Amino acid sequence: MGSLYPPAMRRLINELTRLPAIGEKSAARLAYHLVTSGQPLSLTLAEVLKEAAEKTHLCAVCFFLTEAPLCAICSDPARNRAVLCVVEKPADVVAIEQSGGYRGLYHVLHGVWSPLKGVSPDQIKVNDLIKRLYAKERGDDPLLAQVEEIILATSTTVEGDATALYIGSSIESLNIPLSRIAQGLPKGGELEYADQMTLHMSFEGRRRM
Amino acid sequence: MGSLYPPAMRRLINELTRLPAIGEKSAARLAYHLVTSGQPLSLTLAEVLKEAAEKTHLCAVCFFLTEAPLCAICSDPARNRAVLCVVEKPADVVAIEQSGGYRGLYHVLHGVWSPLKGVSPDQIKVNDLIKRLYAKERGDDPLLAQVEEIILATSTTVEGDATALYIGSSIESLNIPLSRIAQGLPKGGELEYADQMTLHMSFEGRRRM
Repeated sequence: MGSLYPPAMRRLINELTRLPAIGEKSAARLAYHLVTSGQPLSLTLAEVLKEAAEKTHLCAVCFFLTEAPLCAICSDPARNRAVLCVVEKPADVVAIEQSGGYRGLYHVLHGVWSPLKGVSPDQIKVNDLIKRLYAKERGDDPLLAQVEEIILATSTTVEGDATALYIGSSIESLNIPLSRIAQGLPKGGELEYADQMTLHMSFEGRRRM
Repeated sequence: MGSLYPPAMRRLINELTRLPAIGEKSAARLAYHLVTSGQPLSLTLAEVLKEAAEKTHLCAVCFFLTEAPLCAICSDPARNRAVLCVVEKPADVVAIEQSGGYRGLYHVLHGVWSPLKGVSPDQIKVNDLIKRLYAKERGDDPLLAQVEEIILATSTTVEGDATALYIGSSIESLNIPLSRIAQGLPKGGELEYADQMTLHMSFEGRRRM
């Protein structure tokens, strides 16, 4: 498709289709917008893209995104260093921070254990989490306090659950209290429209009021 | 949102949200992919983006996209220069070419008359179409043959219909046969699920078989 477009635009469409959730038609629409909106838009985007790729890397401790050796959260002295929240990706950290209820540290896995997609625990930052916790145990990690709780906040999908179980069994010997985020009806949810699994989890996880 | 992301990545997210159909969350997902997939992907994209923006411009005659003064279609001697098809955007040219049934020339409006969105006919390439046809009339346009038919292939939306009517009334005095693309049930369409307007149009436009 799109062999009618001039060569440079075709190369742009090709590169854009490598991005997640961008198909051939979306790529063509984006490229059309970019080449016809005047050069400033495209040149600015090219510039910030280059700069972001060169400057942004993963935090040496928690693997969130940063331009410094440590991310804004790991280097914040006001955070509670006794609680560690394990998430799949940086966007999850942003979402949790926006919810405003959590003040502890994070560990970003950058993926989830998924045999179906051929992703093994070695390919995500699970071993780094285990190393981090054992280093703390040995007194080698100055950033983490004595960990009082690890919150496993991977998605409530089959892969997210499996990853949480894998982490749980890997650090069993450390005897750190582990918790999994609650599963149940979302705020504003109606029972009538909830799926069976969600309803089941919301009964199983019921709390005395 | 996203003030937690490092500065260069935040600038990238900001620029990406200027693109059509890219919201804050999609922009963050794209930026995450771009900064963590290794620099080659981002640097290549930055490079092709810059090149496409610098090289691509509109065809001097039909306003399709090209790197030369004239586009691939206008400069193709094999095209039928007596038929002109008017479309909203370059992607429509690509779609029509792929359908394979049309061998005439095009005129790309780059938009549609939309009072609701504040787009007047002056802001799209309607006047250029009228000028192009009158120039032909005077014998000033070497590219267009004596035009035997103008096919108005703008979308079958309210705006597309209004634009087609506006063009029709603007060139009435030229006495060129005008046609509008057929409206009716799409291939494979079931009557039961067609909307009333489509059903009405498909009866009104019925053809003897």
